[in-house]
Amino acid sequence: MNRRARVRDIAAEAGVSIATVSRVLNDHVSVAPRTRELVLRAMARSRADAPGGRRTVHVRCPYVLTDYFGLIVSSIAETLRLHGARMVLDAGVSARSSDVLGALADEPDVDAAILILPPEDGDQLVALARRGLPFVVVDPRTAPPPDIASVSAAHLAGARALTAHLVDLGHRDIGVIAGPREWLAGDARTAGHHAALAQAGVLPARHRVHHVEPTAAEGLRAAADLLDEPRRPTAIVCFNDKLAVGALRAAHDRGLRVPEDLSVAGFDDIDLSRATRPALTTVRQPLQEMGRIAVSQLVRVLDGHRPEALHLELSTTLVVRDSTGPAPAR
Amino acid sequence: MNRRARVRDIAAEAGVSIATVSRVLNDHVSVAPRTRELVLRAMARSRADAPGGRRTVHVRCPYVLTDYFGLIVSSIAETLRLHGARMVLDAGVSARSSDVLGALADEPDVDAAILILPPEDGDQLVALARRGLPFVVVDPRTAPPPDIASVSAAHLAGARALTAHLVDLGHRDIGVIAGPREWLAGDARTAGHHAALAQAGVLPARHRVHHVEPTAAEGLRAAADLLDEPRRPTAIVCFNDKLAVGALRAAHDRGLRVPEDLSVAGFDDIDLSRATRPALTTVRQPLQEMGRIAVSQLVRVLDGHRPEALHLELSTTLVVRDSTGPAPAR
Repeated sequence: MNRRARVRDIAAEAGVSIATVSRVLNDHVSVAPRTRELVLRAMARSRADAPGGRRTVHVRCPYVLTDYFGLIVSSIAETLRLHGARMVLDAGVSARSSDVLGALADEPDVDAAILILPPEDGDQLVALARRGLPFVVVDPRTAPPPDIASVSAAHLAGARALTAHLVDLGHRDIGVIAGPREWLAGDARTAGHHAALAQAGVLPARHRVHHVEPTAAEGLRAAADLLDEPRRPTAIVCFNDKLAVGALRAAHDRGLRVPEDLSVAGFDDIDLSRATRPALTTVRQPLQEMGRIAVSQLVRVLDGHRPEALHLELSTTLVVRDSTGPAPAR
Repeated sequence: MNRRARVRDIAAEAGVSIATVSRVLNDHVSVAPRTRELVLRAMARSRADAPGGRRTVHVRCPYVLTDYFGLIVSSIAETLRLHGARMVLDAGVSARSSDVLGALADEPDVDAAILILPPEDGDQLVALARRGLPFVVVDPRTAPPPDIASVSAAHLAGARALTAHLVDLGHRDIGVIAGPREWLAGDARTAGHHAALAQAGVLPARHRVHHVEPTAAEGLRAAADLLDEPRRPTAIVCFNDKLAVGALRAAHDRGLRVPEDLSVAGFDDIDLSRATRPALTTVRQPLQEMGRIAVSQLVRVLDGHRPEALHLELSTTLVVRDSTGPAPAR
């Protein structure tokens, strides 16, 4: 169906003029909210009735598909397949180019989208929604705009529980290896870390936070920097498990025992964290559940229902293993 | 463009009758090889001229997108994007259902395909090729049929170099943690391992090969079994780096020093292997190059050229670090 025919059908379905549909599509301010909603619903139904009956969902993951993002995307792929939908994937760092979202709404055969950790701000997401493309945000950076459906993990709560665990063990001087500054889930985790410290009456030390690429090799380097300071921290929190593998190695290279001399904690609970030595204390992320639930939410919207809840936050779980212990006496 | 119009155009382009194009599409044996080739080339050109000029490539990776498959798929995604093509991804274990390949050739808007480690046998791949869908196989199981373009890593040569390195260090009794039996790259690696042993006059011991899921936790379990045998091996070769992380842990749990008491080697050279303790001896796989080159090969075919070479095998590199050393005296 070409665009013109589609606009005509949407106008008929919504009981408004073609000009009104165009105004909604072009995000004119002069459309009444109730009319806008009628048109958007008609658009969603029209997309659902696409020729062939098979839906195409554009999934955008502007990151390399590692054990973190790869698990989310695999789960989305499997769930879309269950629903008989087809997945167009835009992945890798080059998918971050800024004009993508605007172009997406104009793709004639894309019925909906899933945006994983989108770098765009809330205004850009609202603009996309106004153009009538149903979408769900997975792992949003900040509280998403009120009308945008999202599925996230409780990054803040998870990081807060982890740092609280260390505080309970007597740690006050805690280094953080936080992933790159623009790594957005890191913001929430840093906030959770600060919240737990604040509750113990500790002000975070800015020089204790290192921003690096989330790899084992960078974790090794950043931990070396933290441990070579004149007064080294008694614990290191890493914002993923691979960074923590590097930190364990840096401790060993310096003859430090984990957890007797230094506690090390990870984040994500990927398979790896059970086989390090010692096994890692970490925070389990619901990666596969996030993918599954994002698809169910999207399918509900495509079927003309409201999503179950606009903002779903799936819980994270503190997993205490052997790499954290009481703070050493100074 | 509908199917009938497309067949008509292909017939005109190839200078044959519509009936001949149909015979080629239905894989009749009565078509002369030269005629078949003319028709297939015309089909490739017709797909390249698809409406909108934008190509859609179906990528099938019937596995979870971990640090191994995820890196290949990310690289394919980035390279397709460079070529302005769109990627439809079929990923995850449920993508292994058997009827996928047949359906692929009938998808009206799929221009080409990339099949990653396809579980299908050569006959099924030949059948797909005869139906006129251009495709490239990445990481094929066995030597692919002569007419099928493929890009693979030198699994056999890599594993052979790794075991030869251990044999040079005096190891004769080597355990293997090999990934699941149906994990197909494992076949070639086992063959390489056997070849290196044979050259040293050693017959492989079947009970020394453990087939498990390629995770760190399973590596820990399988290595424990190997190390708890009355006469334990002096070295363990793991067919990926995560398995090797588990093996390092199993050695440590038993008070065995690596590499003094036991050598451990991995495969893949993912980031992790530089941060274990000791750092892993492993075999570097050209994952990103495989993805890039698969796309270039496919684009050449879509542009009506022959691929550079039908079967490209990218070299693997032995990376010697600290986890392998001389065999201990018995």
